[in-house]
Amino acid sequence: MSKGLVVQKYGGSSVANVERIQKVAQRVVEYDKKGYDLVVVVSALGDTTDELITLADKINSAPSEREMDMLLSTGEQISVALLAMAIHKLGCEAISFTGSQVGIITDNSHTRAKIIKINVEKIKEELKKGRIVIVAGFQGVTLNQDITTLGRGGSDLTAVALAKELNAGACEIYTDVMGIYTTDPRIEPEARKIEEITYDEMLEMASLGAQVMQPRSIEVAKKFNVPLHVRSSFNKEKGTMIIKEVKKMEDVLISGITLNKNEAKITLCGVPDKPGIAVKLFGYLATSGVSVDMIVQNVSHTRSTDISFTVAKTDCAKAQKITRGVAKEIGANDVLVDEDIARVSIVGVGMKSHHGVAAKMFGILADNKINIEMISTSDISISCIIKKKDAETAVKKLHADFGLNKSR
Amino acid sequence: MSKGLVVQKYGGSSVANVERIQKVAQRVVEYDKKGYDLVVVVSALGDTTDELITLADKINSAPSEREMDMLLSTGEQISVALLAMAIHKLGCEAISFTGSQVGIITDNSHTRAKIIKINVEKIKEELKKGRIVIVAGFQGVTLNQDITTLGRGGSDLTAVALAKELNAGACEIYTDVMGIYTTDPRIEPEARKIEEITYDEMLEMASLGAQVMQPRSIEVAKKFNVPLHVRSSFNKEKGTMIIKEVKKMEDVLISGITLNKNEAKITLCGVPDKPGIAVKLFGYLATSGVSVDMIVQNVSHTRSTDISFTVAKTDCAKAQKITRGVAKEIGANDVLVDEDIARVSIVGVGMKSHHGVAAKMFGILADNKINIEMISTSDISISCIIKKKDAETAVKKLHADFGLNKSR
Repeated sequence: MSKGLVVQKYGGSSVANVERIQKVAQRVVEYDKKGYDLVVVVSALGDTTDELITLADKINSAPSEREMDMLLSTGEQISVALLAMAIHKLGCEAISFTGSQVGIITDNSHTRAKIIKINVEKIKEELKKGRIVIVAGFQGVTLNQDITTLGRGGSDLTAVALAKELNAGACEIYTDVMGIYTTDPRIEPEARKIEEITYDEMLEMASLGAQVMQPRSIEVAKKFNVPLHVRSSFNKEKGTMIIKEVKKMEDVLISGITLNKNEAKITLCGVPDKPGIAVKLFGYLATSGVSVDMIVQNVSHTRSTDISFTVAKTDCAKAQKITRGVAKEIGANDVLVDEDIARVSIVGVGMKSHHGVAAKMFGILADNKINIEMISTSDISISCIIKKKDAETAVKKLHADFGLNKSR
Repeated sequence: MSKGLVVQKYGGSSVANVERIQKVAQRVVEYDKKGYDLVVVVSALGDTTDELITLADKINSAPSEREMDMLLSTGEQISVALLAMAIHKLGCEAISFTGSQVGIITDNSHTRAKIIKINVEKIKEELKKGRIVIVAGFQGVTLNQDITTLGRGGSDLTAVALAKELNAGACEIYTDVMGIYTTDPRIEPEARKIEEITYDEMLEMASLGAQVMQPRSIEVAKKFNVPLHVRSSFNKEKGTMIIKEVKKMEDVLISGITLNKNEAKITLCGVPDKPGIAVKLFGYLATSGVSVDMIVQNVSHTRSTDISFTVAKTDCAKAQKITRGVAKEIGANDVLVDEDIARVSIVGVGMKSHHGVAAKMFGILADNKINIEMISTSDISISCIIKKKDAETAVKKLHADFGLNKSR
């Protein structure tokens, strides 16, 4: 009698070499022996994806997205075959599948496809035969049989979607860290592993810079209430549970602090104070595929004002060009670009029911003589743009003063 | 208006690195510009297949054949995507497909699958759109959607089968040599490139040791009368045409000389002279999957005789064990194994209508004091097993005395 179905996802670092693949096989077999049905989703070995991208770039710096998907999907196909072999070696039955073979049907937005539906019949059949089913992460197939990929971190999405579709009892995301931390432990050694965190907080943290999980997969997990367990593939300790609601102690205001140094700030100065300018600027940016993050416009007391916004550094040149075009068109004074910024954010559902969290954050930054250039808030997060040189100090001070340090 | 369809196949050495892939793209585009419709079959980059086999071996020395196919098929998938990108870079339209995507349906004999049928509709559609169609060689798919491979050299088979199914005007096999030679140019610098050779001769040469083309693909080409052009991907010279019938000069007796050093000779000594022993021995060998090549049994004048046969060296240990078992069972004296042998063969349809070719061959070997250990003949070939140390001399002398040298 099966103890139920577990979906496990192993990231690239967990299968980076032969020894690690063997370790993963051992862990999978342990679960199998305990009586669980298992669906295992695997990413490409270590840096395979990056190596393939480099190879493609040497041939064509603007490769067709369809062909990129054809190329990159081989990485996961190699992983699943090798993991199946490693499990066979341990005497268990296992069978590997590509995304196409298990019927992960997507739209045809190559390199960032969306899953339309999953035909899980094949997986169910194999599970019934007592086999461990290994599925290539990150990939799917269009109705026209073209291979697609789901975007960076797409293997998480494969795992979550399969867990939902198969009604799995658990979805475990194995990675090279112990779980989700209150902040990046490389910046603040006092960072603590979080035991439980809500989907909303995790989403906020992921989109604000925490890189453990892909935001889209958390959204899907939230939508279908799939409980996630983010943990290390190198030991057996419990990691972080990502769930719907967390019973917190009264005094836990915030769950974590994130830092993002990959944005640039663009300011359009001396904008004439009349309607329609913002819509023009951000309309142009949107149609060019530039994703704008924070936007600040001061209420103007004179006839002109400034509009500042942040974009990913990779989009900065493009955004700058568009903004200069708009400046000329509307007669604005100047366009300023600042790449030496960082965004530090505090995240926590606790702040919903507590006043004064923002004030406390600004106070901590002010006490440490850190100037705030832009502010943006959501229900469960507050972000400040500061000078990049102040980033680490800001994280450390906020981490300590909001009571997140291990040694409290 | 199209000038007709050409199927081109590029081997692993022709796409071993970025520069070579770009060269192949240039050649393909030249054909496209001349007005041909093009279907291009590609092997895995350079040593990719061997590297993947080594990787698998580290994980499981007896890997599942289904998983091996899953693993190895990625090699060709990488090649087709990269070649498509390289062609795009040159401004032409191209689209890549896996064997599965273009409907190369095989049986489920993993690692050595046979093609059952090909649904060429997808290819025809893409050709109609004016695109160059790039197909992953070596691979197919079962009706149950499992990925299969066609065995070593299977990309040749993919090309020939597609040429037949699409009724192509030409099937070009690009490789790292200039064509088929009268013998291995590394042994005999006087070896000449053959301009035309029949399927039968090529089959004989391929199965006797010439490694340019996979025998199965030549069989299929013969069966459906697909003319093959074996040529170099590094220059534009004409290579060797493999066709049904060749108009030869009267005095051309033989087309080529082959050498195979990968066989071992096993002799079962003192076999009681009664019926049923050969069938027992070769029956056991066959059911164990050992493929026996030459067999010689002397007519016996005493009550016992010797049976000698050759097998591939890789099967030698297995064959030896089986033969020792039989020896014990039937009360034979001994089993001798000789790995220091070589098979030298002369091939040519010309010998059909000429007497004395065998005698001439034996005479040449005798004149050079080369002892013949076994002899085997077919309609268009004669093979002799000799000591390995005499192999190169035998090839050179036969090549010269049968008038094959460049400088005649």
